Amino acid sequence: MLSLQMSGSIYLVGIGPGGRDSMTPRARDRLKEVSVVIGHQASLELVSELIAGKETISREMSPVERAELAVARAGEGKEVAVVSTGDPGIYAIASTFFSYLKENGLTVRVEVIPGITVASAAAASLGSPLGHDFAVISLADLATDQSDIKKRLEAAARADFVIVLYNPIGKVGDVRIKEAITILLTHRKATTPVGIAIKATTEQERIEITTLGEISAGSIDTDALVIIGNSETFVYNGRMVTPRGYQKGIGY
Amino acid sequence: MLSLQMSGSIYLVGIGPGGRDSMTPRARDRLKEVSVVIGHQASLELVSELIAGKETISREMSPVERAELAVARAGEGKEVAVVSTGDPGIYAIASTFFSYLKENGLTVRVEVIPGITVASAAAASLGSPLGHDFAVISLADLATDQSDIKKRLEAAARADFVIVLYNPIGKVGDVRIKEAITILLTHRKATTPVGIAIKATTEQERIEITTLGEISAGSIDTDALVIIGNSETFVYNGRMVTPRGYQKGIGY
Repeated sequence: MLSLQMSGSIYLVGIGPGGRDSMTPRARDRLKEVSVVIGHQASLELVSELIAGKETISREMSPVERAELAVARAGEGKEVAVVSTGDPGIYAIASTFFSYLKENGLTVRVEVIPGITVASAAAASLGSPLGHDFAVISLADLATDQSDIKKRLEAAARADFVIVLYNPIGKVGDVRIKEAITILLTHRKATTPVGIAIKATTEQERIEITTLGEISAGSIDTDALVIIGNSETFVYNGRMVTPRGYQKGIGY
Repeated sequence: MLSLQMSGSIYLVGIGPGGRDSMTPRARDRLKEVSVVIGHQASLELVSELIAGKETISREMSPVERAELAVARAGEGKEVAVVSTGDPGIYAIASTFFSYLKENGLTVRVEVIPGITVASAAAASLGSPLGHDFAVISLADLATDQSDIKKRLEAAARADFVIVLYNPIGKVGDVRIKEAITILLTHRKATTPVGIAIKATTEQERIEITTLGEISAGSIDTDALVIIGNSETFVYNGRMVTPRGYQKGIGY
């Protein structure tokens, strides 16, 4: 068990979707303050000006190894940041990190600093597809049973949730996104709007609005976020929009 | 139809959960640039330094009236910001705004500027409850049939989604949150962790971690966000965590 008194702190820092102007002052300040920064090479490049001269660790490793390393450095009394693009709490380091602490009975000071999620950025660039109840599902999580993923897709489709698919293409290729489209087509019209967003709100942004009947798995990138509309989602002037009780006078 | 050439622009600006250090530079810069700022009194107070001297409109009105007013001012050639706390695309102004444009056949320049969602902020302060697939449901939306809300609660509960409840207490009082708890208890153990977050990441933050069996509707505030864990969510050292395939070597 690490002693609270002897250890430094760990900050799980969300830097948002990638553009410098989408990172919060809180994230920026923490990155400036710490002495050790851990993260994917691509993430650290996005914040290179803030972390110049610090110890940086960006070699390829699993999320658990990242957690181990952060705890080891904090045990030496260092202030450590682990950087995630988007939000660290959504399909990113935070859950693995806390699970690692629990499995090993460790106590360290940890602060989670939220970032603009990739879903928020994608939605903003597409219009307003997340304006009503939505379900978020990761397709390419190797640690989740495919049967659980299918069950969730079915349930979300039946109950008319807008559906956000993270990791549509993963190590398993495009098998899962093809299966997902097949499942969704049994519950929703082929004309249902679908938004595909790659690196939304950054300079490399690519946005496409298509339909469930016309979407091609081949056009979906590893970095894409896919948003499938509910039964009321519409496209107007190039924007994908899920309405929320459009009624004058209703103040929700 | 408003002419594109004659009109100004409208920015739907998300300022995040409320703390100054959680607002992105992009949101801050836009608020500084515009000449008209529309929003709830409480939201405008959070950005008062940025909008000093500008025309501000904060009187009580419905979201549709806010959209009308923004379009009218843009029609006069003004640059207009409509401010939302959290993210404008999630249960906020963006969907009403685009629906209003469609219903009235209007074309104006609109930019949506995402903010840290209240869900991200709440999750960060609670630990990492959104580490796996989750469903987001608003309970107090008067424009949504109660039967649809129940259907979504049932579906999300059955498929073992983490469930995020927005607007647990609304104009309808605590009837809906009580019904939601009853529905969820038929599908999940009474020991399922539940996080309640009020004004997370701001100076007024209040965080509580309880269980589905012990939660009291009376302790839930209008401003609260309620997060119900899935079958694997645990509490360790005061943090609520939904694990994500904790397995060494799995890189997702």
